[in-house]
Amino acid sequence: MMMKIPFNELEEKIFDVFLNESVSEEKAKTLSLIMAQSTLDGVNSHGINRLPLLIEYVRRGVIKINAEPQIENEQNVFAQINGNYNFGILNALFATNKSMELAGKNGIGFVTLKHTNHWHRAGTYGWHAAEKGFILICWTNTIQIVPPHGSSKELIGNNPFVIAIPREEGHLVLDMATSQFSYGKVATYARTGKKLEVNGGYDKDGNLTNDAKLIREGGRHLPIGFWKGSALTIMLDLFAATLAGGKTSKRMGNGETMDTGASQIFIAIDPKKFGDETFQQNLINETLKQFENENEISESDIRYPGQETLKRRKENMKYGIPVEKEIWEKVNSL
Amino acid sequence: MMMKIPFNELEEKIFDVFLNESVSEEKAKTLSLIMAQSTLDGVNSHGINRLPLLIEYVRRGVIKINAEPQIENEQNVFAQINGNYNFGILNALFATNKSMELAGKNGIGFVTLKHTNHWHRAGTYGWHAAEKGFILICWTNTIQIVPPHGSSKELIGNNPFVIAIPREEGHLVLDMATSQFSYGKVATYARTGKKLEVNGGYDKDGNLTNDAKLIREGGRHLPIGFWKGSALTIMLDLFAATLAGGKTSKRMGNGETMDTGASQIFIAIDPKKFGDETFQQNLINETLKQFENENEISESDIRYPGQETLKRRKENMKYGIPVEKEIWEKVNSL
Repeated sequence: MMMKIPFNELEEKIFDVFLNESVSEEKAKTLSLIMAQSTLDGVNSHGINRLPLLIEYVRRGVIKINAEPQIENEQNVFAQINGNYNFGILNALFATNKSMELAGKNGIGFVTLKHTNHWHRAGTYGWHAAEKGFILICWTNTIQIVPPHGSSKELIGNNPFVIAIPREEGHLVLDMATSQFSYGKVATYARTGKKLEVNGGYDKDGNLTNDAKLIREGGRHLPIGFWKGSALTIMLDLFAATLAGGKTSKRMGNGETMDTGASQIFIAIDPKKFGDETFQQNLINETLKQFENENEISESDIRYPGQETLKRRKENMKYGIPVEKEIWEKVNSL
Repeated sequence: MMMKIPFNELEEKIFDVFLNESVSEEKAKTLSLIMAQSTLDGVNSHGINRLPLLIEYVRRGVIKINAEPQIENEQNVFAQINGNYNFGILNALFATNKSMELAGKNGIGFVTLKHTNHWHRAGTYGWHAAEKGFILICWTNTIQIVPPHGSSKELIGNNPFVIAIPREEGHLVLDMATSQFSYGKVATYARTGKKLEVNGGYDKDGNLTNDAKLIREGGRHLPIGFWKGSALTIMLDLFAATLAGGKTSKRMGNGETMDTGASQIFIAIDPKKFGDETFQQNLINETLKQFENENEISESDIRYPGQETLKRRKENMKYGIPVEKEIWEKVNSL
């Protein structure tokens, strides 16, 4: 069952949960804002739904609540940061801000982050940069949860990848994992018996299927575009881990907990340094306009990356944010 | 029918073709080397097979054989280049070299290229950079040849995208268009009646199919991962066109010829500036090793990006390069 929670109530509740865990007020404030915003945008899986797991990680010391990210190497145009196992959200925001600072000076800012924790919603950092007028490419590696093409064994991550481009009428934010569907979505569909829109993986006999239940029952997830998404995932992992001097998907984990120790890349660009902003915005708007004007199937079907998010954000701010009753009760019992 | 042509003979033949078109010796030398290398690596579609079309573009003046790329804005860490409709291959090599020069100084080099022509094989620039020890990300936009997800009309490109990482035992080079299959492959399969390995598009009634013939006959190509590849393609196009100050997929063409005026991005990174090379190479090799050791289906099936290319390169250098007889005759009649 879904409840509707007003944004402020959600944010305050999350804030209180963190304070109860002895997280500093400053950290709790940022964390609760970001997690409430993700939920506001409809990404509950990486917002409120993930709070119980996050708190478990705090209690087990996987997340070091008093750690701070540390710049280990700063050059003119790039910086290498050690996340010291602080909150993944706070480390990634720190890295995004650093990349924008460098881009503000040089046009480009390139930042690596190692030894960090799950950054929750990938799009967070794209929206954050676009709000400040920066283009951002960023990605993270993840634990091994998808088999590479041709394999029966989970050996690669789903390495969420973001490209954000600022736009006056609404930013463009691509937030994309390299698996066809997220684990959360497949789990939800398996529970409710709903079929996935397209094939999302293999059943236990290796047949492609859109039956979420069969994927869960001994099956495997599918990388986007088969061998293509598989290859892209491998490259994103090795790129991030080697330049960050951190861990690959294969090396992630700390012995007890698998999901810790990610490596991440943040590339910020200041578009103003590359030319006239009006020209740039016109190029973008003209391309988006054709999706409205030249579609023969159904006007509502072509969406630019970020379009639905903005719509949902407005609706949820007005009518309250849909949250599963079971999740809300769990959060209230933390 | 396939013939086998030795590398040197192929290179010399292409060189002569260019000289006959009054292309300078210097340009002809680089062009013939690159096009022979692409064919050597098995990418005939963007090597020898494309030479007749390239020459047609030269004769029609779409490619300006005496033009040179021009750096219109050079900063510490980035440069913006106008390709002036010179050969796409030469412009892209120039941009790759510039990005490496900047990366050699700063760790990162970021280069935009506008008003250029088809760069042929995307992987060329990745292999080139990796040979010199640089990581490279680069991509191009293309003309509108794929429908965005939810559309019946070709409104986006297939924007080939490259990530290259140098490695002592053989570089990793991802060379990936954002459509599930290339136009060349679908055309070949349609001609021979062969079925594609997985669904590659829709038939004219909008049903997913792996029948190349049905895709060709009024159907449409499929972006990798449906909405995901579609969204990625849109972002790559807008990113490249706005920062290059060039043309989007929508704007490409010069009135008569559609396939000209691409915008491209080249990001080079000097990995030595980011840490210990032995550590980096170990991370990579350890990840690749697991694909050999931990696969339960079939050992030969998991390949790292670039692996097959190296194998083919060695074979073709030894036994001659397979070239279609029809193509070879066409080239000889140019």
